Amino acid sequence: MSYRQYFARYLPKIEEAIEGALQAPDPRVEEHYAMMAYHLGLRDHHLRPAKVNAGKRVRPMLCLLTCEAVGEDPDQALPAAASIELLHNFSLIHDDIEDNSPTRRGRPTVWHLWGIAQAINVGDGLFSLARYLLNELGASHPPQRVLQVQRLFDQTCLRLTEGQYLDMKFESTLDIRPEDYLYMIEGKTAALIEASTSIGALLGGAAPEIQEAYAAFGRYVGLTFQIIDDILGIWGREQETGKSAASDIITKKKTYPVLYGLNHPQIGPTLRELYDGPSLSQEEVRLVVDLLEKAGAREAAYSLAEEYHQDALRALDRTGVKRPAQEALRDFANTLLHRRA
Amino acid sequence: MSYRQYFARYLPKIEEAIEGALQAPDPRVEEHYAMMAYHLGLRDHHLRPAKVNAGKRVRPMLCLLTCEAVGEDPDQALPAAASIELLHNFSLIHDDIEDNSPTRRGRPTVWHLWGIAQAINVGDGLFSLARYLLNELGASHPPQRVLQVQRLFDQTCLRLTEGQYLDMKFESTLDIRPEDYLYMIEGKTAALIEASTSIGALLGGAAPEIQEAYAAFGRYVGLTFQIIDDILGIWGREQETGKSAASDIITKKKTYPVLYGLNHPQIGPTLRELYDGPSLSQEEVRLVVDLLEKAGAREAAYSLAEEYHQDALRALDRTGVKRPAQEALRDFANTLLHRRA
Repeated sequence: MSYRQYFARYLPKIEEAIEGALQAPDPRVEEHYAMMAYHLGLRDHHLRPAKVNAGKRVRPMLCLLTCEAVGEDPDQALPAAASIELLHNFSLIHDDIEDNSPTRRGRPTVWHLWGIAQAINVGDGLFSLARYLLNELGASHPPQRVLQVQRLFDQTCLRLTEGQYLDMKFESTLDIRPEDYLYMIEGKTAALIEASTSIGALLGGAAPEIQEAYAAFGRYVGLTFQIIDDILGIWGREQETGKSAASDIITKKKTYPVLYGLNHPQIGPTLRELYDGPSLSQEEVRLVVDLLEKAGAREAAYSLAEEYHQDALRALDRTGVKRPAQEALRDFANTLLHRRA
Repeated sequence: MSYRQYFARYLPKIEEAIEGALQAPDPRVEEHYAMMAYHLGLRDHHLRPAKVNAGKRVRPMLCLLTCEAVGEDPDQALPAAASIELLHNFSLIHDDIEDNSPTRRGRPTVWHLWGIAQAINVGDGLFSLARYLLNELGASHPPQRVLQVQRLFDQTCLRLTEGQYLDMKFESTLDIRPEDYLYMIEGKTAALIEASTSIGALLGGAAPEIQEAYAAFGRYVGLTFQIIDDILGIWGREQETGKSAASDIITKKKTYPVLYGLNHPQIGPTLRELYDGPSLSQEEVRLVVDLLEKAGAREAAYSLAEEYHQDALRALDRTGVKRPAQEALRDFANTLLHRRA
């Protein structure tokens, strides 16, 4: 069974758990919860019930799939899976304010519709709700295990904010070493995927070393995902990604290939001069892409992604027995590496 | 022993616990944690270690005092007490952005110094840290009890954001019933004080009905505190409060006495007309204060505060045995009711 078949099976359960969590406890605060639901694609901008594309729910999927991979009924991990998706979306609501983004997935962002003040608070509400939902685990897991999940979850929240701190800090400097960038994406991107697989394994009753292997799998999958994303942000094809070609160069995002270039002895100085100015002309964008390509930035990024991918597969091998859900996880990792969008 | 003597004894422990929690796990994210420490008064605006007035730490004090009141060593509640103070301060960092406040306690706010984007994230970091700190309770309490604390804490976070949602919503309407206002302050102000005493009692090993009595005590103390605050915001003396007289009328805050007036059959229509305009002249401010006074708004607010105060004392009576720390809680509640600043 491919990972897509598992995902299709899980999706309705995840949606149901999320919708259940978003019920307001009192009609007076109905709108507060409805704005959260808007962001999650469950309401339209009039806050009427709707069903809009609002992401693929990849993290909760991986949580359930890992729970199944260790031999347990994935329902055992359902509250945690939904909680992880809420946490992810809380961080997106705040990211959208921080990045001043008016749209996400073709819809106006929460701050754009209801103002920055309410949007900050809607994010805080969703964050609180994500945490609150974890308490449901107590009904079907021993207290000690629930505490382990909560600790992992809280650690992940901290790493998310650390990664976000660095990401914003990097905006105002060109002196970023590739290893600092990798440390940043470990927090901003990989930590939550690591938490998804790690918590899925834990709730599936895996032994500590098996859980650790699944945690590593998630972390490396997250890192692979981000580096491939970085490559597609420069060399992706417009027809495939849906974004304009070289979009990350146009916005001067300091992704891995760019940092490779900025730290490169030959092209570094030229690149620094270009990145020091206010914005790049079309011609300069083409020049940057060309310089990066010739200096080997694309290749370097791709071999890094492949390395992480191999690390992920090795971690998966350490999890022992072969179950169909494990193969689906491998299938998922392979698809990520070769994606073009 | 007065509550002040207890507080003086607790303060160094609380400060130590807070400073301990704010240590960065990696030098690359040192600044992220230092900005949190700035808000808590432990760094100056160059982020150098400092010791600046940044609040009285009332909530953690009440948490420890309640733990002692049920007969337990207050150190048993210390991580939770520090966590509650971090949670309170996270909410202030975000409130300052939402209210567009450039200063707090005579110092520039986090957003004013480092921008809205970083300030949102600093708040998120502090929120995460508050949660993370609770995990330390596992070292000295049974898992089931730690889970109860976490659930209470998460519920409180939700109620805080619900209260904040309503507070902002009320800014744009004059149609607020007094009971809706009380529901709002129960979330925004009273919930966290309720959590402080409730968690203190729980970690002190109190039986459920005793814990419930302490929770009620905290809730009513919080409500009393807010209503007295509302009175002082209109009728407080400048020399005592340090704020200009009638400051809440100048800023058109819809506090309890104002809502009493807006909903009053005689003065309501005049007041609504005045509050409908853009801002009040000095003369109009005086008129509003006068109208409220004559319609009995101050008296109504004060008797409501007294009612809550009596509820608080009755709750305290339900907690049974008389210990010095219980008397200190009573002393604290009495001082709140009669404060002039």
